Amino acid sequence: MRAYDIILKKRNGKELATAEIEFLIGEYTAGRLPDYQLAAWAMAVFFTGMSKRETADLTMAMADSGDRIDLSPIQGVKVDKHSTGGVGDTTTLVLAPLVAAAGVPVAKMSGRGLGHTGGTIDKLEAIPGFNTSLSLEEFIANVNHRQVAVAGQTSNLAPADKQLYALRDVTATVDSISLIASSIMSKKIAAGAEKIVLDVKVGSGAFMKTYEQAVKLAESMVEIGRQVNRQTVAVLSNMDQPLGQAVGNALEVKEAVKTLYGEGPEDLIKLCLTLGAQMLKVAGMVETESEGREQLKEVLNSGAALRKFKDLIAAQGGNSSVVDDLTLLPAAKKQIELKAQKEGYIAGIDAEEVGLAAMSLGAGRETKDDIIDPSVGVVLQAKVGDQVNYGDTLATLHINDDANLMAVKEQLQSAYTITDEQSDKSKLIYKIIE
Amino acid sequence: MRAYDIILKKRNGKELATAEIEFLIGEYTAGRLPDYQLAAWAMAVFFTGMSKRETADLTMAMADSGDRIDLSPIQGVKVDKHSTGGVGDTTTLVLAPLVAAAGVPVAKMSGRGLGHTGGTIDKLEAIPGFNTSLSLEEFIANVNHRQVAVAGQTSNLAPADKQLYALRDVTATVDSISLIASSIMSKKIAAGAEKIVLDVKVGSGAFMKTYEQAVKLAESMVEIGRQVNRQTVAVLSNMDQPLGQAVGNALEVKEAVKTLYGEGPEDLIKLCLTLGAQMLKVAGMVETESEGREQLKEVLNSGAALRKFKDLIAAQGGNSSVVDDLTLLPAAKKQIELKAQKEGYIAGIDAEEVGLAAMSLGAGRETKDDIIDPSVGVVLQAKVGDQVNYGDTLATLHINDDANLMAVKEQLQSAYTITDEQSDKSKLIYKIIE
Repeated sequence: MRAYDIILKKRNGKELATAEIEFLIGEYTAGRLPDYQLAAWAMAVFFTGMSKRETADLTMAMADSGDRIDLSPIQGVKVDKHSTGGVGDTTTLVLAPLVAAAGVPVAKMSGRGLGHTGGTIDKLEAIPGFNTSLSLEEFIANVNHRQVAVAGQTSNLAPADKQLYALRDVTATVDSISLIASSIMSKKIAAGAEKIVLDVKVGSGAFMKTYEQAVKLAESMVEIGRQVNRQTVAVLSNMDQPLGQAVGNALEVKEAVKTLYGEGPEDLIKLCLTLGAQMLKVAGMVETESEGREQLKEVLNSGAALRKFKDLIAAQGGNSSVVDDLTLLPAAKKQIELKAQKEGYIAGIDAEEVGLAAMSLGAGRETKDDIIDPSVGVVLQAKVGDQVNYGDTLATLHINDDANLMAVKEQLQSAYTITDEQSDKSKLIYKIIE
Repeated sequence: MRAYDIILKKRNGKELATAEIEFLIGEYTAGRLPDYQLAAWAMAVFFTGMSKRETADLTMAMADSGDRIDLSPIQGVKVDKHSTGGVGDTTTLVLAPLVAAAGVPVAKMSGRGLGHTGGTIDKLEAIPGFNTSLSLEEFIANVNHRQVAVAGQTSNLAPADKQLYALRDVTATVDSISLIASSIMSKKIAAGAEKIVLDVKVGSGAFMKTYEQAVKLAESMVEIGRQVNRQTVAVLSNMDQPLGQAVGNALEVKEAVKTLYGEGPEDLIKLCLTLGAQMLKVAGMVETESEGREQLKEVLNSGAALRKFKDLIAAQGGNSSVVDDLTLLPAAKKQIELKAQKEGYIAGIDAEEVGLAAMSLGAGRETKDDIIDPSVGVVLQAKVGDQVNYGDTLATLHINDDANLMAVKEQLQSAYTITDEQSDKSKLIYKIIE
């Protein structure tokens, strides 16, 4: 088999055989194929696409390129939730204890943030003492004893995907639906998921800027799940504005705790109930989504979900008293209010700009090696649909130094679009694809 | 400027600016851009194409990537002839003295053969003593004194093209018309051509297998010539069977000498007169092609073209007596006849297979480092349209050892298609594009 023939075949729009895809990915990961051949192949895929079968084959070839985590020692159906990345996306902090409290084991491996999007691991590490570096044995034991564990990825998961993604990133071949879908799914499968619930973000702050693109991506991932026998459901949710109010690590932990107390922002609660109900459904705990919602509301109202969060924190070495006393979380020295410069209705809040502003304050990383400050960030007081008068507070900046302050305030100000006409509150959940 | 943005722009089907093309080629040649970015770009070009302006810009960027030969010390219009590569293509050996005898200076830089196609330099080196390694000064002096010189390329001509071609060769991006056209034209322009006559071969033995492809390539090259002020004419000629009868270096020299004596194969004479007339026309020596033909026939009939060939050989250190005594050329030890296995009419002779058979005998190179044997090769006695009886000689193999003989005979036999019905002699000249 020769890489040349495989590139030519794909370039000519033909369907590659399973063995050809396995050869390409296997040899590339082994360092026996040069980047330039994979770059040409990826560009050919951009133009000619891949069939459902090819996309599934690519997913499995990448999943098999490194370690495969074996979660079989965990009792019950292992359901993984994955978000395509958003701003102020606090869902995992709420969902993990919520779903675990409802009886579905949550063995969640998460990542760190980069650029304008945050990462669950960074958020949890804002809790004093919280340890996200668990061995696989500890991780599994925690899930078996407490129904929930959240850890950073330590294993060598889907290295082919890492390598290919880095190459696509510099050759303008990132935005191919098949390649994005197989990239996401390969990591979930390598991490041991049996069932997958995807939160596909759509809008200015998301990877998928349009509804049509997001639908295609979601359909592709659900289809991969079908092909490789991992039931997958995708929830398309709005990322035209940040989710909830908090953008910043300790600020988002606070928001998560409030949500588990039943006092969270409406959109965050709604999304968590929707995703959670799907998780319960694919786990076979409930028959319908509304049944799932009811169960989740019960564990929320009874305080069981909040207790599960305390459990999770304590089990991973964190100070679980933060749940009872939010002042134990790191806090920034100063709070600066951003005032409305005109009156009207909030028509939009560019999520990417808000994410970048929070990053500039120190809440996120511009490059992998940057160190983040858990205490800083932004809390959005006014959200889409709200009416504001001149001088009303749009958002509060939590800062430790004034270095970038002027620029960040300007960036946030420009992220807000204020119009004279009342605009509809933007829809949160667009569609569920299963 | 970033390579990424240029790849993305081309991928999205937009027209690149001149500066962007210059950046891409300049930085690549300087080793500052990785192969994988150029591979992705080339694949994007394969799918989205290039405008006439972009193709001309790419041509000039590659022509400017290394040395540019200055032929201005040569008096008269410098016309270059280029063939896209065929089997048994003896035209340059005939055309160079023929056109020079008619008064157009011929400063011809040629290459060596590889694979199934031969090279003019190898053919001339079959003449004892013939030196193809001339300095630029010797080369120019010879053209000024004798109107003709043929030498190998010593300068660093269009290195960007070499580098890019090698990359395209392993990434399935060779067959893009714009990329092929700019590759050919960049070398001609770097070699100092003012006017260019192209022999675009079409058929089984050629790079362009179909008429439609060949027309597109020819039109693209003629358009490049127009854009960069180098008048270009393309002659589309048949390569569904080898040109003339001889395939092999000394054998082709013999055939060229016979042709200059007025005794050459009909198709070779016809193609030489067609190409030569175009050369005279673009040089401004004649008004019409038929006028050009008449002049060439005169120098052929008067013996002036033959004398010019003797001149050329003598000026470059070769034994010019070969022209009077063909037995002075290297000859193979044995001649083996290939007999027809059935009676009928020759409907086709796969030129690529004949070229590969000659290569197997030692007349060509499989890899760059192979040493060729000037004496061996094949002479085709029967050509398309001829009637043969069982046992008639189809071809004569000139060999020095029997090593591959059985396989070569089988290959040649299978190259011949013999049918019951008389087929038309295939057309030699398809079209002239100017």
